[in-house]
Amino acid sequence: MEERTEISSLGEFGLIDHLTRNNEIRNSSTVLSVGDDAAIIDHFGRQTVLSTDLLIEGIHFDLMYTPLKHLGYKSVVANISDIYAMNATPTQILLSIAISNKFSVEALDEFYSGVYFACEKYSVDLIGGDTTTSQRGFVISITAIGEVAPNSYVKRSGARVNDLICVSGDLGGAFLGLTILEREKKIFEQTGAQPDLENQAYIVGRLLKPEARKDVIEFFATHEIIPTSMMDISDGLSSELLHICKQSDVGCVLYEDKLPLNEDSKEFAYKLELDPTACALSGGEDYELLFTVAQGDYEKISANNGLSIIGYITEAAEGKNIITRGGNKHELVAQGWNHLK
Amino acid sequence: MEERTEISSLGEFGLIDHLTRNNEIRNSSTVLSVGDDAAIIDHFGRQTVLSTDLLIEGIHFDLMYTPLKHLGYKSVVANISDIYAMNATPTQILLSIAISNKFSVEALDEFYSGVYFACEKYSVDLIGGDTTTSQRGFVISITAIGEVAPNSYVKRSGARVNDLICVSGDLGGAFLGLTILEREKKIFEQTGAQPDLENQAYIVGRLLKPEARKDVIEFFATHEIIPTSMMDISDGLSSELLHICKQSDVGCVLYEDKLPLNEDSKEFAYKLELDPTACALSGGEDYELLFTVAQGDYEKISANNGLSIIGYITEAAEGKNIITRGGNKHELVAQGWNHLK
Repeated sequence: MEERTEISSLGEFGLIDHLTRNNEIRNSSTVLSVGDDAAIIDHFGRQTVLSTDLLIEGIHFDLMYTPLKHLGYKSVVANISDIYAMNATPTQILLSIAISNKFSVEALDEFYSGVYFACEKYSVDLIGGDTTTSQRGFVISITAIGEVAPNSYVKRSGARVNDLICVSGDLGGAFLGLTILEREKKIFEQTGAQPDLENQAYIVGRLLKPEARKDVIEFFATHEIIPTSMMDISDGLSSELLHICKQSDVGCVLYEDKLPLNEDSKEFAYKLELDPTACALSGGEDYELLFTVAQGDYEKISANNGLSIIGYITEAAEGKNIITRGGNKHELVAQGWNHLK
Repeated sequence: MEERTEISSLGEFGLIDHLTRNNEIRNSSTVLSVGDDAAIIDHFGRQTVLSTDLLIEGIHFDLMYTPLKHLGYKSVVANISDIYAMNATPTQILLSIAISNKFSVEALDEFYSGVYFACEKYSVDLIGGDTTTSQRGFVISITAIGEVAPNSYVKRSGARVNDLICVSGDLGGAFLGLTILEREKKIFEQTGAQPDLENQAYIVGRLLKPEARKDVIEFFATHEIIPTSMMDISDGLSSELLHICKQSDVGCVLYEDKLPLNEDSKEFAYKLELDPTACALSGGEDYELLFTVAQGDYEKISANNGLSIIGYITEAAEGKNIITRGGNKHELVAQGWNHLK
């Protein structure tokens, strides 16, 4: 039998003490951490980058197939991915949670073990937060703080005509992972049958345990590449690229045959009679980096197998288009996940 | 008839554009604000202070008697109060909300008008956030960022034996305001009778439109006072003072007759047969500052009518006590609002 400690037996402050007992400080800039009204971070002539996400049970995650440890890990990763997308380095996070009494201390420990695992992997410090109750469901709010050399950050608005459009890793995997988990959830609810994930470890892992592309930012630094614009892909490639085009006042051409797809993702998409290209364009939560670079960086980018050049930037008047494998031109439309629909 | 625009008619990004269309930048340190993956703030050899709050409908606020504009105002004030409690100056906030489709754009405009009103009053910039859906209820997450000269921040752990215990303003008002609003809500639910707030504008205002004590921090700066410890009072005086004692490893003596009470609060407490002292000790959400100073600052503090000296710090072994009007000594107990009970 699993042990169960009621949260009420610890009280709010006891719970906070409990949850932060293994909290480690890794950055010398962390002057004051959890345990006071606010946290203090020091700077050395660098700029501070801040990003925040609010995640709601039933909207952003389903606890039926999301292990709490993975949820903790992913919550941190998704948020610091926004910091990397600025070409910055995450250094600290603030984490708030609201929980109903359906959660035990052990369940929260699982969640926090994922949070701390991500903190360790990405060298960020958890420096504060808020812990409170919800009437129903689990609510997570994370604010990430990062640093960047003055004026070295990369915005969405800097793409210029003829820049190359590039993306890290491969696309659509997280969406396909979600598809299989949702399918098995429905089967379980209707028949009670145990989930059959068909050995789809790759795509399920893409959804449940994504990584932020710290390595890409380091590659840029090593090779003296400064992207002209950058975003992380949380809503889907088309949606994000349209943001870059809008904010940079430019158009774009994408090539379908250049979109990076993983073999497992592709095979599974065919099996479900889904178009892998559509999965790559519209599937969210891959947390890859979408960026543009000047043509002069072509050699450096193409020497890295983990990066793909998928198109180029045009004048705004030329529109936003994708050239299919068959050579046809289609307008690029955003079908990203719109939570507000 | 009131106009009603469905949120779905704007879409997520349209909604964000709409909600931030009047967002003003007031600090030269705000380099990049709403509209990218993260926000950039600049520093000038100063330290950055960060604090975050998560507020859940039905737990932290009741929309039945909380106008949305007041809720927006209070959400900001409660969060930046934590920055002042570090002896720091708030400069930016990040604001995330999750909403269900029961809210109209007009309702959110009301909420944001309160947010922007607080931003203007306290000279802070809203620099980012996240906007998403909830299945039910309104969720608010605010992160405040502030600055302070290096090592000038004031923690909870610095109180020393013989220090004076001080508090700003008066206490218990917000609790009494909550009491009358909860009473009238019950009467309305049972009988449909319109609320009778008995002209209790003061206490209702203390609950619905609290202020953060910026003026006290400015007073400290002008008079070269550096408190030895400080907190803001969100959970109640006893609860907060016990935190200071625990973290500073000291004891304390409070005097009942020194506790600052407003005349309206006192009269209304008597009317409800509540003990005003209990309201002052245990009532939360007054957002006054509780702090300790060295004895040498006695003259400076007592010259300010808005500050009260309510006791002094003792050795830890002497315990935490209150001396009643009748001269009896009682142990101080925390009866603050424990949301997790």
